[in-house]
Amino acid sequence: MSLGIGVIGTGVMGSEHARLAAREIPGAHLAGVFDADAGRARAAAAGATVFPDPRALIASDRVGAVVIASPDGTHAELALACLEAGKPALCEKPLASTTAEALRVVEAEVASKRRSIQVGYMRRFDPGYLEMKRIKDTGGIGAPTLLHNVHRNVRAPEWFTGPMAVTNSFVHEIDVSRWLTGSEMVSARVEAGPGGDPLMITMRTDRGEIVSTEVHMNAAYGYHVHAEMVGREGTVALAPPSLVSRNKEGAGGIVYPDDWVPRFADANRRQMTEWVRAAAAGTPVGASAWDGYVASAIAEQVAAGMAGDRPTALSVPARPSLYG
Amino acid sequence: MSLGIGVIGTGVMGSEHARLAAREIPGAHLAGVFDADAGRARAAAAGATVFPDPRALIASDRVGAVVIASPDGTHAELALACLEAGKPALCEKPLASTTAEALRVVEAEVASKRRSIQVGYMRRFDPGYLEMKRIKDTGGIGAPTLLHNVHRNVRAPEWFTGPMAVTNSFVHEIDVSRWLTGSEMVSARVEAGPGGDPLMITMRTDRGEIVSTEVHMNAAYGYHVHAEMVGREGTVALAPPSLVSRNKEGAGGIVYPDDWVPRFADANRRQMTEWVRAAAAGTPVGASAWDGYVASAIAEQVAAGMAGDRPTALSVPARPSLYG
Amino acid sequence: MSLGIGVIGTGVMGSEHARLAAREIPGAHLAGVFDADAGRARAAAAGATVFPDPRALIASDRVGAVVIASPDGTHAELALACLEAGKPALCEKPLASTTAEALRVVEAEVASKRRSIQVGYMRRFDPGYLEMKRIKDTGGIGAPTLLHNVHRNVRAPEWFTGPMAVTNSFVHEIDVSRWLTGSEMVSARVEAGPGGDPLMITMRTDRGEIVSTEVHMNAAYGYHVHAEMVGREGTVALAPPSLVSRNKEGAGGIVYPDDWVPRFADANRRQMTEWVRAAAAGTPVGASAWDGYVASAIAEQVAAGMAGDRPTALSVPARPSLYG
Amino acid sequence: MSLGIGVIGTGVMGSEHARLAAREIPGAHLAGVFDADAGRARAAAAGATVFPDPRALIASDRVGAVVIASPDGTHAELALACLEAGKPALCEKPLASTTAEALRVVEAEVASKRRSIQVGYMRRFDPGYLEMKRIKDTGGIGAPTLLHNVHRNVRAPEWFTGPMAVTNSFVHEIDVSRWLTGSEMVSARVEAGPGGDPLMITMRTDRGEIVSTEVHMNAAYGYHVHAEMVGREGTVALAPPSLVSRNKEGAGGIVYPDDWVPRFADANRRQMTEWVRAAAAGTPVGASAWDGYVASAIAEQVAAGMAGDRPTALSVPARPSLYG
Repeated sequence: MSLGIGVIGTGVMGSEHARLAAREIPGAHLAGVFDADAGRARAAAAGATVFPDPRALIASDRVGAVVIASPDGTHAELALACLEAGKPALCEKPLASTTAEALRVVEAEVASKRRSIQVGYMRRFDPGYLEMKRIKDTGGIGAPTLLHNVHRNVRAPEWFTGPMAVTNSFVHEIDVSRWLTGSEMVSARVEAGPGGDPLMITMRTDRGEIVSTEVHMNAAYGYHVHAEMVGREGTVALAPPSLVSRNKEGAGGIVYPDDWVPRFADANRRQMTEWVRAAAAGTPVGASAWDGYVASAIAEQVAAGMAGDRPTALSVPARPSLYG
Repeated sequence: MSLGIGVIGTGVMGSEHARLAAREIPGAHLAGVFDADAGRARAAAAGATVFPDPRALIASDRVGAVVIASPDGTHAELALACLEAGKPALCEKPLASTTAEALRVVEAEVASKRRSIQVGYMRRFDPGYLEMKRIKDTGGIGAPTLLHNVHRNVRAPEWFTGPMAVTNSFVHEIDVSRWLTGSEMVSARVEAGPGGDPLMITMRTDRGEIVSTEVHMNAAYGYHVHAEMVGREGTVALAPPSLVSRNKEGAGGIVYPDDWVPRFADANRRQMTEWVRAAAAGTPVGASAWDGYVASAIAEQVAAGMAGDRPTALSVPARPSLYG
Repeated sequence: MSLGIGVIGTGVMGSEHARLAAREIPGAHLAGVFDADAGRARAAAAGATVFPDPRALIASDRVGAVVIASPDGTHAELALACLEAGKPALCEKPLASTTAEALRVVEAEVASKRRSIQVGYMRRFDPGYLEMKRIKDTGGIGAPTLLHNVHRNVRAPEWFTGPMAVTNSFVHEIDVSRWLTGSEMVSARVEAGPGGDPLMITMRTDRGEIVSTEVHMNAAYGYHVHAEMVGREGTVALAPPSLVSRNKEGAGGIVYPDDWVPRFADANRRQMTEWVRAAAAGTPVGASAWDGYVASAIAEQVAAGMAGDRPTALSVPARPSLYG
Repeated sequence: MSLGIGVIGTGVMGSEHARLAAREIPGAHLAGVFDADAGRARAAAAGATVFPDPRALIASDRVGAVVIASPDGTHAELALACLEAGKPALCEKPLASTTAEALRVVEAEVASKRRSIQVGYMRRFDPGYLEMKRIKDTGGIGAPTLLHNVHRNVRAPEWFTGPMAVTNSFVHEIDVSRWLTGSEMVSARVEAGPGGDPLMITMRTDRGEIVSTEVHMNAAYGYHVHAEMVGREGTVALAPPSLVSRNKEGAGGIVYPDDWVPRFADANRRQMTEWVRAAAAGTPVGASAWDGYVASAIAEQVAAGMAGDRPTALSVPARPSLYG
């Protein structure tokens, strides 16, 4: 009755997925892993099977559901293979390396007539974001008018070029903003700060709400994600990201992590827990393939239009009925 | 390989334990429940077996580990039965309704030569308290000198008499203070406020540290537990107990729960997760029977001496070697 | 040696200025007031002279310096009269009801060859803003890249039309942003939320910094002004605007005022204190007539361009050398 | 009409008083100073008269009111001299170096039939403490039951002996606790931490309220004063002592000062402003000679009893009717 999980790709995120599957998820166990680097695969497997190639993992009878955490360029192909094999998949973002490919995955899932792919936008499972959404959904701030997101990385990798701040980092804000507001984004404007960093990206939704986002790739002081939503009757914001408050060496307050791993550790655990439950119940509850496609499509359009003077009109095809 | 958990007593805490066992705990499932009220038992069982009496539950082959959440007066007897049956038990606090009885459980466990009883002092699994302890243990505040605890209940039940604030509420602070400091409490003084509520209880440890605790049984505004530890180089305190911050109707800040259930929901889940892991690995990691006995013994001594002018000397027998 | 202050206009702000002059300002006293409503004037005078017209007040030997707090349409004319009389003036914002008029005041002051007009942008004297500026100026956050301002009014007066959110409220953010960054604003874009409220206004400075501002005219929950500045090495933000923190009725946190009066009471006192000192020393230290003109000019340009798709280029004449 | 202020003693506090009198106080000016160290006196005078001895200062026609900030041992004698000369005095704490001497000052003031001495317990003028008191006095927390004070110095001077933590530091908490609660302290117990620092001092008031205070002489991380008052309906606490919040080098929060000077700078200014007003109006509004005597008497009794096992009963003579 326990669900066997196979993990493809055992880098930073994949290893964490493997660890979660092996130790933290009710009703599931780690059935096996694959990685192009066999040593890394063995380390992450911690005794579970190491498959010789991803197809074998997907095909295995012992694997009931698949986590795709391999390099971005392989996501679409592996997602399609999971669809073909009829196995639920949790695919790390992005769903595909191009929007066109992502759309192919959506079309294949639509053709399969059931949702079985979830995209790893884990913030939808972060307790703080969930509480923001609950409060907004139950009328706690009145009708929403504005959402301000803050995304601060410590420093950008060297290979980071301008548009990657949009397609790689801001894409998280696109997904969480669509999910928090329940609205679709219809236009975007980008302002770039000194040397191209930070970006201030202002989107409008189909309900007229404003979604503004600061994206700092080199904030230096720490990894810090924040959001505040304003409504007609009040506001709700994430609490400071710390379990404790300290006083030391002349200063009082909190400590930031260097990256997203500790910040979203609990969100990742909850994401997999709910995904495993949904694998039994039938329908994924997190970001769907459609959500993954839309986030990538919007990010691509924002990046393409970011140099222009005018707002970029954002357009996505009509939502297939499979996605409600 | 999944551990079958039997839950005895399905009141507020027992039902939550049953729900956790059924849905939230990796490597475990709910094997069955017992409650004197059969309807309540059936509701909590949610399809699992309802046992006709607690002995049958403990004896069942399908039950690999037992949660004792029945009325306080039955704890010791059921813990002894679990010891006899050789099954790990997670016993809600208190371990027994008298110190003498609690000592009998300790003695029986010592005679069994292995630890198999854990007492449900769930704060030891609260992420905030864990982070406080981690920071202190890694030298983050220097040598501890003072711990100030704040315990605020919304209102006392009608049947609450004076000493129950000590034996029922403050007992949690005794356990968490022993665990946080790693020290033993050696004396206590009690000041009672207007009408006997609040209490300010000041203990000293065998290292000379001061542990002061405010116990408010009728704080009215919400259920609120707080702690700050001061060391020679700094301090660490629990962060405000909220995932979000709100602005509404002229006010900005957080919302308190009415009772401990939401405050310690995650601690309860983590407690059971670790307990299940320990059932496989051999040794419970939370509060031991010894810790349960000591907390009750100290509470009893504090309550007995609370009317006096002088500090109460706190004494417990030598710690059996089983408890390290 | 005490400076006699005359106050023209004794509405909400003028009465407060009169009270400050009479009671709170070292080296100064209230020499007299004028208001079109004689009863209101007498109440604010609290025993000091009530002048029959503003010209008589400005001309009086007992008046060494003038506060202009009369209706906006009279500001420029009265400021010119003070210039002519050679008396320092503290003029409530705006400096004039049109940019053209404001420029005339600047030109007259330039012709006078000394600065004697200060515009009442009191945030420059708010302790929190001053501390932000001090930290930024001493390198505490590295080179600034982004400033995010939050301006929330409880509800807009009925006579408020769209552009007034810019010319009346946002104008404060223009001044404080110029002062905090020490940069000039060169372009602006406006996004309007549902029904035209809130506005998100994104400006760029001549150093490439981004200045974004939320202007909510109907935030409902309270009067709330906030700002965070991000630099290459860190950030600095205003602390929550409260002296205390409360727990009551299920909630914990702070209480907001209904309007700006309590929020900026101390800033107003400090502004007048420094203005009186400067009247002796020679040069006003707050917002100059030039600053007042620029803030109004930018606001006017932002309001004029707010319906367009493209960013509005902001332009002001070259800064006269009098303003350094 | 401006009040001439003479300042006796121009050490840290005296210099600050001289600066305030010269620059910050409406209706007052610095008339002159005295200090045993003439150079120090000249520096603090900044152009005002330097008197050759304190008696000459008190006697001078140009001095309308006197600040006593000389060494503790001279306070009582100078206060008596001011009483004799009929001049209002603001005396730094303590009012006298012994309780007996303090009582002589009280008796002399009672004999004079009017209050003219104020003791410099400046916290009564701190905006945060004032707001706490206002909220409590207007029923905002219901009937008070407990006040918890936190007093943290960075490090104790070398000459600090055990009881000085009581008579020198804790004495501030005695005064502010009496003022906040409006109650008289009737008993006290002291717990000493490792090596005698910190102290936890628990007092009871004549209304049964509990007043507990942490006194840390070597808190290392910063100068930090905090207080929370609990009532039957809620609580009120001082906000974190900072105008801004920062993120830098992995940490977010506030910065503490090294000593009380910046923390209570505004309180000192307000104290002198109100004292000058009261010098005109007739009755000091801050801590009276009686308050100064009581704070010292209680501190002395607490220090004398701190080694004992039993609570120390605190006693003061009946309050003379002059003190209401």
